[in-house]
Amino acid sequence: MSMDLDFELNADRLREECGVFGIYGHPDAAALTALGLHALQHRGQEAAGIVSFDGERFQTERRLGLVGDHFSSEKVINRLQGSSALGHVRYSTTGETILRNVQPLFAELAAGGFAVAHNGNLTNGLTLRRELISQGAICQSTSDTEVILHLVARSQKSRIVERYIDALRSLEGAYALVALTNKKLIGARDPNGIRPLILGELNGAYILCSETCALDIIGAKYIREIENGEVVVISDDGIESLRPFPKTPARPCIFEYIYFSRPDSMLGGRSIYEVRKAMGRELARESAVAADVIVPIPDSGVPAALGFAQETGIPFELGIIRNHYVGRTFIEPTQTIRSLGVKLKHNANRAVVQGKRVVLVDDSIVRGTTSVKIVRMMYEAGAKEVHMRISSPPIKHPDFYGIDTPEQKSLLAATHTLEEMRQYIGVDSLAFLSVDGVYRSVGYEGRDNARPQFTDHCFTGDYPTHLTDLVGETKKQQLSLLAEAG
Amino acid sequence: MSMDLDFELNADRLREECGVFGIYGHPDAAALTALGLHALQHRGQEAAGIVSFDGERFQTERRLGLVGDHFSSEKVINRLQGSSALGHVRYSTTGETILRNVQPLFAELAAGGFAVAHNGNLTNGLTLRRELISQGAICQSTSDTEVILHLVARSQKSRIVERYIDALRSLEGAYALVALTNKKLIGARDPNGIRPLILGELNGAYILCSETCALDIIGAKYIREIENGEVVVISDDGIESLRPFPKTPARPCIFEYIYFSRPDSMLGGRSIYEVRKAMGRELARESAVAADVIVPIPDSGVPAALGFAQETGIPFELGIIRNHYVGRTFIEPTQTIRSLGVKLKHNANRAVVQGKRVVLVDDSIVRGTTSVKIVRMMYEAGAKEVHMRISSPPIKHPDFYGIDTPEQKSLLAATHTLEEMRQYIGVDSLAFLSVDGVYRSVGYEGRDNARPQFTDHCFTGDYPTHLTDLVGETKKQQLSLLAEAG
Amino acid sequence: MSMDLDFELNADRLREECGVFGIYGHPDAAALTALGLHALQHRGQEAAGIVSFDGERFQTERRLGLVGDHFSSEKVINRLQGSSALGHVRYSTTGETILRNVQPLFAELAAGGFAVAHNGNLTNGLTLRRELISQGAICQSTSDTEVILHLVARSQKSRIVERYIDALRSLEGAYALVALTNKKLIGARDPNGIRPLILGELNGAYILCSETCALDIIGAKYIREIENGEVVVISDDGIESLRPFPKTPARPCIFEYIYFSRPDSMLGGRSIYEVRKAMGRELARESAVAADVIVPIPDSGVPAALGFAQETGIPFELGIIRNHYVGRTFIEPTQTIRSLGVKLKHNANRAVVQGKRVVLVDDSIVRGTTSVKIVRMMYEAGAKEVHMRISSPPIKHPDFYGIDTPEQKSLLAATHTLEEMRQYIGVDSLAFLSVDGVYRSVGYEGRDNARPQFTDHCFTGDYPTHLTDLVGETKKQQLSLLAEAG
Amino acid sequence: MSMDLDFELNADRLREECGVFGIYGHPDAAALTALGLHALQHRGQEAAGIVSFDGERFQTERRLGLVGDHFSSEKVINRLQGSSALGHVRYSTTGETILRNVQPLFAELAAGGFAVAHNGNLTNGLTLRRELISQGAICQSTSDTEVILHLVARSQKSRIVERYIDALRSLEGAYALVALTNKKLIGARDPNGIRPLILGELNGAYILCSETCALDIIGAKYIREIENGEVVVISDDGIESLRPFPKTPARPCIFEYIYFSRPDSMLGGRSIYEVRKAMGRELARESAVAADVIVPIPDSGVPAALGFAQETGIPFELGIIRNHYVGRTFIEPTQTIRSLGVKLKHNANRAVVQGKRVVLVDDSIVRGTTSVKIVRMMYEAGAKEVHMRISSPPIKHPDFYGIDTPEQKSLLAATHTLEEMRQYIGVDSLAFLSVDGVYRSVGYEGRDNARPQFTDHCFTGDYPTHLTDLVGETKKQQLSLLAEAG
Repeated sequence: MSMDLDFELNADRLREECGVFGIYGHPDAAALTALGLHALQHRGQEAAGIVSFDGERFQTERRLGLVGDHFSSEKVINRLQGSSALGHVRYSTTGETILRNVQPLFAELAAGGFAVAHNGNLTNGLTLRRELISQGAICQSTSDTEVILHLVARSQKSRIVERYIDALRSLEGAYALVALTNKKLIGARDPNGIRPLILGELNGAYILCSETCALDIIGAKYIREIENGEVVVISDDGIESLRPFPKTPARPCIFEYIYFSRPDSMLGGRSIYEVRKAMGRELARESAVAADVIVPIPDSGVPAALGFAQETGIPFELGIIRNHYVGRTFIEPTQTIRSLGVKLKHNANRAVVQGKRVVLVDDSIVRGTTSVKIVRMMYEAGAKEVHMRISSPPIKHPDFYGIDTPEQKSLLAATHTLEEMRQYIGVDSLAFLSVDGVYRSVGYEGRDNARPQFTDHCFTGDYPTHLTDLVGETKKQQLSLLAEAG
Repeated sequence: MSMDLDFELNADRLREECGVFGIYGHPDAAALTALGLHALQHRGQEAAGIVSFDGERFQTERRLGLVGDHFSSEKVINRLQGSSALGHVRYSTTGETILRNVQPLFAELAAGGFAVAHNGNLTNGLTLRRELISQGAICQSTSDTEVILHLVARSQKSRIVERYIDALRSLEGAYALVALTNKKLIGARDPNGIRPLILGELNGAYILCSETCALDIIGAKYIREIENGEVVVISDDGIESLRPFPKTPARPCIFEYIYFSRPDSMLGGRSIYEVRKAMGRELARESAVAADVIVPIPDSGVPAALGFAQETGIPFELGIIRNHYVGRTFIEPTQTIRSLGVKLKHNANRAVVQGKRVVLVDDSIVRGTTSVKIVRMMYEAGAKEVHMRISSPPIKHPDFYGIDTPEQKSLLAATHTLEEMRQYIGVDSLAFLSVDGVYRSVGYEGRDNARPQFTDHCFTGDYPTHLTDLVGETKKQQLSLLAEAG
Repeated sequence: MSMDLDFELNADRLREECGVFGIYGHPDAAALTALGLHALQHRGQEAAGIVSFDGERFQTERRLGLVGDHFSSEKVINRLQGSSALGHVRYSTTGETILRNVQPLFAELAAGGFAVAHNGNLTNGLTLRRELISQGAICQSTSDTEVILHLVARSQKSRIVERYIDALRSLEGAYALVALTNKKLIGARDPNGIRPLILGELNGAYILCSETCALDIIGAKYIREIENGEVVVISDDGIESLRPFPKTPARPCIFEYIYFSRPDSMLGGRSIYEVRKAMGRELARESAVAADVIVPIPDSGVPAALGFAQETGIPFELGIIRNHYVGRTFIEPTQTIRSLGVKLKHNANRAVVQGKRVVLVDDSIVRGTTSVKIVRMMYEAGAKEVHMRISSPPIKHPDFYGIDTPEQKSLLAATHTLEEMRQYIGVDSLAFLSVDGVYRSVGYEGRDNARPQFTDHCFTGDYPTHLTDLVGETKKQQLSLLAEAG
Repeated sequence: MSMDLDFELNADRLREECGVFGIYGHPDAAALTALGLHALQHRGQEAAGIVSFDGERFQTERRLGLVGDHFSSEKVINRLQGSSALGHVRYSTTGETILRNVQPLFAELAAGGFAVAHNGNLTNGLTLRRELISQGAICQSTSDTEVILHLVARSQKSRIVERYIDALRSLEGAYALVALTNKKLIGARDPNGIRPLILGELNGAYILCSETCALDIIGAKYIREIENGEVVVISDDGIESLRPFPKTPARPCIFEYIYFSRPDSMLGGRSIYEVRKAMGRELARESAVAADVIVPIPDSGVPAALGFAQETGIPFELGIIRNHYVGRTFIEPTQTIRSLGVKLKHNANRAVVQGKRVVLVDDSIVRGTTSVKIVRMMYEAGAKEVHMRISSPPIKHPDFYGIDTPEQKSLLAATHTLEEMRQYIGVDSLAFLSVDGVYRSVGYEGRDNARPQFTDHCFTGDYPTHLTDLVGETKKQQLSLLAEAG
């Protein structure tokens, strides 16, 4: 039976918004894209889309739901003919989840078709949208990505790559973009390199994707990461690298290491799994505690808990068992079901925790609501002591670069001291990994406050870009069109 | 049991493309729009849409399928809040039937939301689209109606009605348009007045719709027809009539009388039913024949057959019985089913035709394929003679104003003489109503060839506007994006 | 546009419960059965099923909905292999419409598979069911047809035909049954011959079906009707006719002529269409009235109205236009839609009725609720006088043989005098065809009260069989299992 | 991101057939049953059903698919009124998965409604079915559970409990049964006690279910296990225990410990999780090997791998990462997807295995096909050595008591020696836990061959009952009715 170290789809987690995958020059472009998106499914489960180009026309299939539910049939894949393809999985951070927001977005430009897929979030998207509409543009989606299409369509430059770079210069915020034209696959990463973008190769076909696990699933070779501020143009002539922005140091998002990337992915030359174990070891060094068992909160706390257990020598045990059949179910629960709350997903493994001093390990605390329930479950199962250890620092500031954080007042650490948090969660002790501990886990001596090596504003409040939309108005302007159902 | 004088949904009929219905100032705007569209369902069965405005936001629901299948539930109607609403039923003449082509189309303009519903077809739609794209516009649908939205969005005028009229001046072809803004409902009819548009009123709320039967269903009062080249602006201040075009005589489409409008509708002050009966009487005068029974081809031939029977004194009988459960069924027939062809829809009423001289009456012949089968069925049921009488002239020229005619070479009358047609259909005699007979049936002495009173190019080749797209290129340019399924 | 003489699916009509079609010895057995059921669709639209036998196994497909929606694809037909097949369309008279009630029912007997399809209703079905359950039988459906299966399964006879006849001897009420075994197709008609059953032939394959129109659709030849009390066994050895019951005169149901059968069917050697016209003529003779137009209530009143018009010389006109897109729509209407009532289906053709003395002709009145609305619509459209003529006698008694009549107190004629009915309906005059007028229309001099030629209890109260269940208890015993949804 | 120790739904695993849950005397009976079934979902994912009794009638809802997909809405739960309820989740072992096979099965007996849910499989089910049919019974499902209903219906005893016990005496094989009548909830376990059945209590309401985890989810108290051969009758009068069979020692199925039960369940007074860890420790003692990492095959191998790691001191690491979005997806894979096989579900965690000596731990080998692919993946990821350790003995014999084993020739261990298996799987070494090692892990000194403590025929060939159907005929007799789709 199931061992329950599963990824937890709940309201008390951060959510990534997107994963992208593009391939140029392979006869099975669409099928490989579907597989790549499947490997990136953890980056977005609300919708998926693929655009392909068959040498004459673009085909597109966009669906709400999982890749495997819609892109696994020969029928669908056969509609996506061609040797280049571009795909996207998404959560919605900007724009409701309606079909016309599902990416890749596509436009018929004078020069031909142009599709684009976006991981990240613009911090001046609404400002740009208002300017475009005042110039007569018609926006059909509520996605900030559509703004990019309009900027390309309206650029005064003549060649498509120049028009695209012209558009990128207007953008502020985070983006890892892949675009597909009738002759090129184009990757771009914002000047800070906040969101990841990887270059790979399979039998001579180039691939641009969000994580290395999407290369692994199709047996492709890892080449390198696209650099911050780099634009890469893939065509029949090979790869060309452009640097349209002034050179600045990279500041990739630290949450890819802590939470978002798959443990089997490599990022910045590091194994995500080993970084997370290192975070657990650092945490054990910083905040050891006498205990009988180390219990991960499934599934996110598992690698850190292993690191913590290995550092301390205290046994790692599965003290919480997860029911795997929850993911997409009980969406409309009855009151009786609702009141049982966390039990639908988790059950205490009484044999492991009864009479024991338990260290619960998790990777982060957002609202803290789930932590409360799990801790109570541990005590009810007979735990003598419960200590909580979190393998990242307290989250005090919201994100505007594509992570779906709750508003600041809902972040437990933004409104509570450590001791207040301990009491709220109801544990005997609580400790977070320090910011420097995070940097040590990825191989630095600590955070370089003068030139921080990562985008880490959720912990530090240090945002790497302007926040134009936020300054211009306190909340997002409502569109006059309500989303249509279905 | 069923008497089978039903409207025949088959490949051998002409198809209208659209019906429109808008209402301003009624608390049940969306529900009344749903009913109005239901009454106009014969004008388009592929898709339906309604946009409403609740004083703050626009809501939209657009669906493939029948009005009654999607807009009859309280749940859907309740999502369409507001006292003004705009609806549309369609066949696709331009643009494949995909959800993003379903009207009304909507755009977020700088001045606010703008929705438009279109009955008709532009003869310079592709030309305008190409110009717009070359100026940086992004087209999301493949419908020619989207062009109108872009023209409004890009107009240099300041007030919305001026921008709209500015856009109309660029259009060529046929249009009966209804637009909805946050303050106005605007009707417009092209300079020739090819497609119909009716003004009505219900408890102080104004209505714009394609036929009077849509007024009848909600108990609304008929006021008048919008005139050719007229723009009507309905707002809280009442109705304003604008005449932005040079005055020219109206040339409404004659096919509304022959085929498209519902028999219980009034058009141009005439009862459609009585006009059709008059066509049958004229036909009897022009082409009488000795016979025992007058049999209509269900359901399109019924009024003309009644007129023919009353004129000649020969009994009207239901010699063909129709199975009503066919409409939307047997869409994927087996070979066995396919070979039985017309029998799925019709059966000869042997008791009526056996041993008799039969006059079959229909309203038109397009390809002639169905006529062949029905005539054969009559002989197999024992008819001694079969004479076919058609209550309109031979269709020799395709339409470009919103009627879905086959290409010219598929029109039986374009490639066959009368005698060849008689032989092809296999009847003892065949006669069509003359062009002047048509004009007599609607109350004129005949066609005024200097200033024809109707758009009748299908019979005469006399197109009332330029055909810019047709001249510019022989066939429609393919877009680089294939339609997506679903 | 549509001429609206359509069959009206409404709550104020009688409903037939079933149609059956079986074929033995044709390679396309299932496809032909689907077509036959399609032709019989007017006899039941709630569900359809087909069982086929491929020489080794029985296959079955049973669905809620129309034949054309579920049995028109090659995929479904190909699952129904074999050269014999049996099909059924149904309304539910006994037993809720759940999938397990959809016929044909099938049982695995010791001698092999046995499928049965039933048109009619047993008047001792519940009594038999209770006896069977007390003997240890397990009933899975709530259909009275399952009782027949159990009786066959439990018969002490050895041969299947003997067991079947053994079962039939226990039945009381109305049945036209077709059964399929691994070697035989067996037809049976109750001793009164209340429900119809026809024998036909196509290329050597025998067919048993409810109406001749099901033969016409597949081009099969009519042979004869199965007689009252006859059992017909079709096998590789040909046809064998058995007479297990004492010989009695036939009393077929008169409503097949008045209402249920398709106008193009032949029954008892008579054309249904011609009988209905004759009823209109008899009615005109019995109850003439000075008038300007004869208007049928679509579609049921059309043939009688034609007969009435031909007899009187008053013009037949389509004064009511029907919207065909109603059939399966507006199933969950909003209040606004509900209040508009009959207008969703019908519209007055004002040009025909305004200022005229109108004779409305229909085939029957059940509750009268629709009549009231249609009459009001006529006056609102300007009719000067409205006279209603019904081509059958007043319905005063409920049916227990498979027609879904409302309970007696809801039958207008059971609780109102003629004058009260006239006032309720709101017409200037009202007349029904006399009982003898009905018998004259089918060719008799009148009703033979000593030995009535038809089952006509709805008019006369003269039920041709015992009503055991009705006597035993006033209402149907509730089963302890509620139907399951879906 | 996800840690991937998930339960693997693949063709190379054993499958349990069923879980049962009944509750008597609680106002939320159906909602609690839905939750109990959700906790038992690992025992059957193909279909689920609930029957409730509201004091007057039984309601039933039965669906293909997961509990959470169909029984989580208030709408469905509200249809299941009443204070007693009975539920079932299933794989199909006997009888195709068609809706009419979904349990609980229900029959209308003379004494009232009777519902039954069955975990297990009868070894004389087909024999009994043939006898019943020859006596005139009509079987509607192809499930062997229906036989039980017929035996109860036909019993000559008068009281329902007596009739039920009468029926049980005819059964051979494995059964944990829960039945619901209008007055009682009745549990029964076969004389060997092969399948588990647990008694619990919540606020005075009694519960019968397959595992303790179904008590945990609703916060119910564990009372005891139903004993082998015991029948327990729960009514308003409390609990009554009956012993209708001669007393024999229990022989529960050993696979509940090895594989089927959830790790957080307790069975026979033992923690499933701890037993599995003990198996890992025994395995380490029996078959140690020099290695760098212990890697579980997710998720089934996790507890044994932890035990193995703790016993040897070699680090436990997640060397295989699982993609959780596979479960219900890629059901219709393209060839390209198919060829990538195991990669859709698993990816090697290269950082963990590269250059290492890896011990892979799993709980069993059935066909071995998945093992081959996972081992190859380990080598491709750079493993220096791969050793496989299985925490149960080789499976050499098929099951007939409700476990869905492949036929014997497909069982790898039935046709290969240990060395041949090692070569087939492609590992450096391979070892299984011994039969006595299994018994030691659950607390015995070893297997008592004279009176084996468990049903363990898959390893030993020692079947605890007759196999009447198997002896009577080599394969299951085909029914003459093919299953119908949907």
